Amino acid sequence: MFQDFTDDTTDKSVLAARLAQLRRQLKQQKLDGFLVPREDAFQGEYVPAANERLKYITGFGGSAGMAVVLAKKAALFVDGRYELQAPQQTDTALFSVEPLMRVPPSQWLAAQVKKGWRIGIDPRLHVQSAVKRLRDALTEKGAELVYLSANPVDAIWRDRPALPQTAVQTHSEKLAGQSAAEKRAALAAKLKQAGQDAMIVAQPENIAWLLNIRADDVPHTPFALSFGILHKSARFDWFIDAKRVSAACRAHIGKGVRLAPPDNLQEALAKLSGKTVRLDPDATSAWFVDALAGSHIVYAPDLCALPKACKNKAEIGGAIAAHKRDGVALCRFLHWLETAAPKGGIDEISAAQKAEAFRAATGRLKDLSFDTISGAGPNGAIVHYRVTEKTNRRLRPGDLYLIDSGGQYDDGTTDVTRTVLIGGKAPPAGAIAAFTRVLRGHIALAMARFPESTNGMQLDTLARAPLWAAGQDFDHGTGHGVGSYLSVHEGPQRISKGGTVALQPGMIVSNEPGFYHAGRFGIRIENLQYVTAANRTKAGERAMLGFDALTRAPIDRRLIDKKMLSKDETVWLNAYHARVLKDIGPKLNRPAQQWLKRACAPL
Amino acid sequence: MFQDFTDDTTDKSVLAARLAQLRRQLKQQKLDGFLVPREDAFQGEYVPAANERLKYITGFGGSAGMAVVLAKKAALFVDGRYELQAPQQTDTALFSVEPLMRVPPSQWLAAQVKKGWRIGIDPRLHVQSAVKRLRDALTEKGAELVYLSANPVDAIWRDRPALPQTAVQTHSEKLAGQSAAEKRAALAAKLKQAGQDAMIVAQPENIAWLLNIRADDVPHTPFALSFGILHKSARFDWFIDAKRVSAACRAHIGKGVRLAPPDNLQEALAKLSGKTVRLDPDATSAWFVDALAGSHIVYAPDLCALPKACKNKAEIGGAIAAHKRDGVALCRFLHWLETAAPKGGIDEISAAQKAEAFRAATGRLKDLSFDTISGAGPNGAIVHYRVTEKTNRRLRPGDLYLIDSGGQYDDGTTDVTRTVLIGGKAPPAGAIAAFTRVLRGHIALAMARFPESTNGMQLDTLARAPLWAAGQDFDHGTGHGVGSYLSVHEGPQRISKGGTVALQPGMIVSNEPGFYHAGRFGIRIENLQYVTAANRTKAGERAMLGFDALTRAPIDRRLIDKKMLSKDETVWLNAYHARVLKDIGPKLNRPAQQWLKRACAPL
Repeated sequence: MFQDFTDDTTDKSVLAARLAQLRRQLKQQKLDGFLVPREDAFQGEYVPAANERLKYITGFGGSAGMAVVLAKKAALFVDGRYELQAPQQTDTALFSVEPLMRVPPSQWLAAQVKKGWRIGIDPRLHVQSAVKRLRDALTEKGAELVYLSANPVDAIWRDRPALPQTAVQTHSEKLAGQSAAEKRAALAAKLKQAGQDAMIVAQPENIAWLLNIRADDVPHTPFALSFGILHKSARFDWFIDAKRVSAACRAHIGKGVRLAPPDNLQEALAKLSGKTVRLDPDATSAWFVDALAGSHIVYAPDLCALPKACKNKAEIGGAIAAHKRDGVALCRFLHWLETAAPKGGIDEISAAQKAEAFRAATGRLKDLSFDTISGAGPNGAIVHYRVTEKTNRRLRPGDLYLIDSGGQYDDGTTDVTRTVLIGGKAPPAGAIAAFTRVLRGHIALAMARFPESTNGMQLDTLARAPLWAAGQDFDHGTGHGVGSYLSVHEGPQRISKGGTVALQPGMIVSNEPGFYHAGRFGIRIENLQYVTAANRTKAGERAMLGFDALTRAPIDRRLIDKKMLSKDETVWLNAYHARVLKDIGPKLNRPAQQWLKRACAPL
Repeated sequence: MFQDFTDDTTDKSVLAARLAQLRRQLKQQKLDGFLVPREDAFQGEYVPAANERLKYITGFGGSAGMAVVLAKKAALFVDGRYELQAPQQTDTALFSVEPLMRVPPSQWLAAQVKKGWRIGIDPRLHVQSAVKRLRDALTEKGAELVYLSANPVDAIWRDRPALPQTAVQTHSEKLAGQSAAEKRAALAAKLKQAGQDAMIVAQPENIAWLLNIRADDVPHTPFALSFGILHKSARFDWFIDAKRVSAACRAHIGKGVRLAPPDNLQEALAKLSGKTVRLDPDATSAWFVDALAGSHIVYAPDLCALPKACKNKAEIGGAIAAHKRDGVALCRFLHWLETAAPKGGIDEISAAQKAEAFRAATGRLKDLSFDTISGAGPNGAIVHYRVTEKTNRRLRPGDLYLIDSGGQYDDGTTDVTRTVLIGGKAPPAGAIAAFTRVLRGHIALAMARFPESTNGMQLDTLARAPLWAAGQDFDHGTGHGVGSYLSVHEGPQRISKGGTVALQPGMIVSNEPGFYHAGRFGIRIENLQYVTAANRTKAGERAMLGFDALTRAPIDRRLIDKKMLSKDETVWLNAYHARVLKDIGPKLNRPAQQWLKRACAPL
């Protein structure tokens, strides 16, 4: 099993001593404060245990947040998802819990600091753009931002686990659709054209894409925690322990890639003195900018980001295959659930384990693409719910049960949410109307055609409008990018109120509107879909882009009010279900096939 | 008649001599180039004849554009609306016509200049943010941007008309809903709170709003071309010729307003030395920044902009009254058109004149809010068509006829577009389907409910989606803000792909999707509507905003394919038509009333 459900909450009683030790460290260094972000040096969503510094100090185990420790005060900043969880996990006598979006740490800090104060950060852990905002806020108050060469949390952390050093694996050219050498050559040409000598590649997933390699350093995202420098000659300096890279793997990545020990990075950056170096300020830590003091830095997006996001034919082919395979597992699960759940005895954990088991039975599962969200009844209304033995709930007839899950396969990453009725009793009042509105939003985005240069902010509206019309909404984005056997959350595109990047052919995005009735039920319907060039239908029309669905699993017909659907919406749903039945049906055993036929019957 | 239809094209033969004279001026001042924007010092859409410098030099009479004159080369930059018109009006042997959006002047100029070149501008005519971009582009090439104290175009312009000096009129507190003193006090409090000593008010419409005054300096927008400084004490220095302001008007604007001759502005700005001065870089010319060299400038939006955009109860009441009055005139016109046009003898000019006559017959018309766009058949497909005696076309049976027009009344500004079939023959193939799609887009935006902080970019999608689905689109914004007896194009909100300002209650915006089939027909359906707090319909729902339509005129039922409308869309249209009939019907004579009943009959 990839997922475990133990309650891994830190014992709160240890936090006071840790905080006191940290404060002693700060005092020794004549610091008035220190920032502890959840991010590690690689700025990813998942960090290895060795880098769970925020959890070590505050007890808070969420996937985003920041602590600010002053001599007399300390605060823990979390976003809306974690406003309930954070006070349970930390000691609120030590840390006040602050809402990250309404009270950004830099703003809170600016209100606390006095003239002459020295606030320390580990510059490896903060991206350049955030440090700039922080420094501006402190400077305005006459305070100083101090870069520390060693992290004081690491200094006090006893039994800190070792950093992972998993073996680097090759990702075949057949699956990647392009050789690593071709990718390097294409990006080097762009660097040259822009008059830039080198580019910092600070995101491990970009290195994984660029070199066609994968690894196992953190859960759910198969990359190797490492940095690199791409030169305009197409040479790539990869700062990684050579022991991790087998001879076969070296042959695979090609001659233009030079391995170097991670400790050599600073020296290599210093050698770029006098050169023009491209660096993404939103993804690269301030430490790099410091180390490149002699270089002319051009702040611009990492050139890997867009070609990685726009999947080629091989990658789309892989995604389709992975989603059919995943769809078989999910349909087997949904059939099992419909048969077993109304009889009782199934809970959120056993359901999630069963879903994982069906995926594992494909024989191709490398990992889950994230911890399964398995929530029944009121737990379904907690958007980023993680079930533990403590919160585990029985699935009861009449419950809405929400399962958001996905797998990592070597040909593709999946992510799908279905909300189903546990049979035997009617669903809660209002659930069918809300489900149908969410479905209408999902269909509006799935059917959308749009001109080139349309961004995710423009499209986001389509998925929300049916909910808005009823005074409803959901407090998360409608869609995120998804990698090819890489991160399940991948930029630069997203479909949300903040999505400013244009959608381009080959981009994979999720389509996941929802509705959450706190304390009662949660609804989310999520497919992955990819951007296609929609066919022109008639002479004289403009070329448009559109989407094609990758996910294959039925949407619960029992929760749909057909009268609320337009004719076009019904046509879409019936066509989608017909595709599910055609692609998945033949791969199921007879009882599951019979069930799928009913689940996919035209409305 | 406010509108005249004479072809006011400049005789091209005079352009060569003017350009040669200008080049001699530049040579004398050791300049290698000079920029001639269409804007004057007040940055408005309409400029008085005295400030039509771009037209004087290039012959181009459009409402936006820029010329760049070098010693050997000259270019005229225009946007997509004017790419056909500009080459007809200018002498293309003298000026190459360049697409403004694809080749911005600063980029074109950067490609031309050589190290050491001196490029002149009149700093009064360019906003600060544009000058910054221009200077950056020139500096990178080793060229210099030079501010000129006198405009070389004015130096060579014989018979340059005088600047307008119309009498300032009071705008009653009853119509404004708030006294000028209250407005000044409210903004001064905000200035103080932000720690700012004074604010430059560089937009005449903001002065008109702030002081509750109007004037007649330019066509269509009733303001006085002038500048002002608001102090944190709530004192307002108004730089305007005192002869223009009667004693009664002085009493109306209150004691806190100090009149000063326009020539004193520079000295007054110099007196702000050492103070913190707020200035809108996108609306204030670089000349101000230069004159404020000793001040600490804070770049931020003009504080007048948002309260001016969010109409109060009195202003909304005025808008409703103005639109009912205007609706009577427009319905009388549409009835006349339907009766007279199929018989022949009506052309684009006589139709526009008739529409103006009906508006004038209300006895309340102060001006048109812009020159009427009156286009039949293929002329309707020219988005910003201005009919002249040269282009005038007969309205023929089977034509689509598009009329976009509006009036200035002291209680409100109107702007409405209707597209109607000239009876007696069937409309062109595809027109009914396209009209119905445009209508569906219009209705989607009219019915929209949306949460606070939703911006125009998010809403724009709703009006386009039905067209996108058919491979169609329109190349203009969906909606612009509208003033209260002020500018018909007013910021900061707009509903377009670039609309980043949140919609707020009281904002008036147009809703005007369209479709243009070049060479055949044009379709646009435009109502004005204002943002309202949509009622909560049920407990537990979130508060939403919505729109209420101001415009009252039927939408041509003969051009609607009812089968393409959803039930909700049909319900909206029928309810809208019922409101038109109820508000307008009783004010028409019997035959017009009968016609309106038919035009507003439920689908």
